[in-house]
Amino acid sequence: MRVSRLGEFGLIDTIRKMNPAKNRGVVIGMGDDTAVIRNDKSKYMLMTTDTLVENVHFNLEYFRFFEIGWKLLAVNLSDIAAMGGIPKYALVTLGLKKNTQVSDIREFYAGIRSLGGKYGVDVVGGDIVSSPNNLFFTMDLFGIAEKVVKRSGARPGDAVISIGKMGASSAGLASLKRYGRKAMTSNVKAHLMPKPMLNQGRLALKYANSMIDNSDGLARCLIEICRESKVGAKIYLNKIPLAKGANLEQALDGGEDYNLILTAPVNRARYVKGGVVIGEITRSKNIVMVDGSGKGKNLKDKGYEHF
Amino acid sequence: MRVSRLGEFGLIDTIRKMNPAKNRGVVIGMGDDTAVIRNDKSKYMLMTTDTLVENVHFNLEYFRFFEIGWKLLAVNLSDIAAMGGIPKYALVTLGLKKNTQVSDIREFYAGIRSLGGKYGVDVVGGDIVSSPNNLFFTMDLFGIAEKVVKRSGARPGDAVISIGKMGASSAGLASLKRYGRKAMTSNVKAHLMPKPMLNQGRLALKYANSMIDNSDGLARCLIEICRESKVGAKIYLNKIPLAKGANLEQALDGGEDYNLILTAPVNRARYVKGGVVIGEITRSKNIVMVDGSGKGKNLKDKGYEHF
Repeated sequence: MRVSRLGEFGLIDTIRKMNPAKNRGVVIGMGDDTAVIRNDKSKYMLMTTDTLVENVHFNLEYFRFFEIGWKLLAVNLSDIAAMGGIPKYALVTLGLKKNTQVSDIREFYAGIRSLGGKYGVDVVGGDIVSSPNNLFFTMDLFGIAEKVVKRSGARPGDAVISIGKMGASSAGLASLKRYGRKAMTSNVKAHLMPKPMLNQGRLALKYANSMIDNSDGLARCLIEICRESKVGAKIYLNKIPLAKGANLEQALDGGEDYNLILTAPVNRARYVKGGVVIGEITRSKNIVMVDGSGKGKNLKDKGYEHF
Repeated sequence: MRVSRLGEFGLIDTIRKMNPAKNRGVVIGMGDDTAVIRNDKSKYMLMTTDTLVENVHFNLEYFRFFEIGWKLLAVNLSDIAAMGGIPKYALVTLGLKKNTQVSDIREFYAGIRSLGGKYGVDVVGGDIVSSPNNLFFTMDLFGIAEKVVKRSGARPGDAVISIGKMGASSAGLASLKRYGRKAMTSNVKAHLMPKPMLNQGRLALKYANSMIDNSDGLARCLIEICRESKVGAKIYLNKIPLAKGANLEQALDGGEDYNLILTAPVNRARYVKGGVVIGEITRSKNIVMVDGSGKGKNLKDKGYEHF
C-alpha cells in the first residue's frame, strides 16, 4: 500500500506500534506534541522536530528566507508550548541546492535568531546536506518541563478551550495565492511568521487536563484529543474564535494556526488566560459540531492530511 | 555567493559565527561531532543529527530500506561514539513521496530497530513530510556522557591513533557502481550497513585528548582536529590501516568509514584497544603526509565536500 493511501495518521499509528519504548525514562514516546523523557526527580526533557519543505510548506515566491527561519523555529516552539515547556536547544539541518545563496542562509538564521532570542533558544548544531530539487529545513528542539500534560488527559465534563484565534494562517495563504505579498494583512503575517504561545502554554499548564497545539486545524485537534483520551466532544461552532477575515472551514481544516487547544475542569476554565470555551468533553466517543440553531452534526475523521 | 562555492565547511564557519551560544549550559555548540550540554554535576547530554538524501547519500538501486534505516542510525551513533557517549533517544523525520510503500517504511524502521536494539536506543518521535522528488530521512539522536572529549584537545607530542580500518566504504561504493549487489563483499557491507564504534569510543575516552569519527575521510579528520586544536600533524602513510581491497585515496578522501581517529599521549597510546598509531601531533600547523621513502608532503585542505 502506498503511504498516500494509508495517510499520515495511519502511517504514524503503524510506526508507533513498531516502536514501543524500552528505556524506562520514556514518559511519552510517539503520538504527542513532543516526546517526554524523565530527567531527574523534578524535571522532564522535551524533544520535538518539524520540517519545512520547499513547494510543500513554503515557496520562494511568498516566503523570504528570514520568514522560513522564523517559521521553522515557531512551529517547533509551538510543540513545546503545547506541553507547557521551556525551549532550550536546537539543531538545524539544511537541505540545500547547489545554487542556494549564502546570503539567503544568513537571512534564514537571522529569522531563527530573531524569534529564538525572545525565548533564550540556542542553535547548538545541525547538519548540511545537498538536496537536488527541493530545499528543506529541519529543526530538532529540546526543552524542559516541570509537569506533563498529555493529549490523553481529557475527562468527560472538561471544558474545551481555545487560546488564540483560528483560521488566520489559512486565510493568509489564500490571500498570498491571490495577491502575493502586496496585501500584507495580519492573516498573511500569521501564515509567514506565526507566533508560538509559549507563555500561554506555561500558564495554562496549571489548569489543563490535556493540551495540543493547533498545527493541523481544529478538527484534527479534536480528533487527536478525543481518540487519545477515549472520549468525545460537543463543540459550539458559533463559539469558535475566528480570526478577522477567516471562515469556519479555514479554522476547522486549514491548519498552521499554532494556537492552543486544551481541556480543563469547567470550574477552572475561567482562569485560563486568554481562553475561550468552545465546547465540552463528553463520555460518548462522537465529536458533535453544534450549529447556531442547535443542530448537531458528527465531525468526520478528517483534518489536514500531509499526503 | 553560492553555497557550492563557499563549500560545506566554509558555510559551517559562517553559521557558527552567527550563532554564539548564550545558555550557560552549552559546553560545545557547533563544530564538533555532537553538541554537549551540561545536565547536572556529573553528566552531559549529547545532541546530534544526520540526514540521508536519496540520490545523494543512497539510491534505491543499491540500498534496501532496511539498510537505509540501519545506516541512518549508524551514522548518528558514530557521532555519539566519537564523544565516548551512550546513545539514548532518537527522533526520525521521514521525507516521503506519494508513491512510497508502507512496507518500505516498515523495513526502514526494522533496520533502525535491528541496530538500535543492540544499544538500547528508542525512537520516541519524529515528523512525516511530503518530499516531492527525493526521499530523505533525518535522525536526531540524544545521548549522555560522563566526560567530554573535544576535537580541540590534541596536544603536540600526542600519538595520532586510528581505531578500525579505512577505505572500506568508498571501495564498497566503487564495487556497487561496477557490479551492483551481486558482489556482496565486506566493503560493500561496510558501505550499506556501517558499524558504529560505540564501545571502542567509550573505552578510548580514558586516554584520548581529542577524538573524531571518520565520516568524511582521514584527510578531513586531520584537518578538523588540527584546526580546532591549533596544531599540526605528521602522518606515516604506510601505517594507515587500510581495509582489504581499499586504496590510500579511498582512505584519505572517500569518507563514510565511521572508524574513530583520536590523539592520546604517546605513553598511553598502547592502551587504546584496537588502536593503531599512524603519526603524531606537531607544534607546526602543517599536516605532513610521510611516504615510505621518508619524504613528506603537505596535505592540501580538502576531504569530502558535500556540495
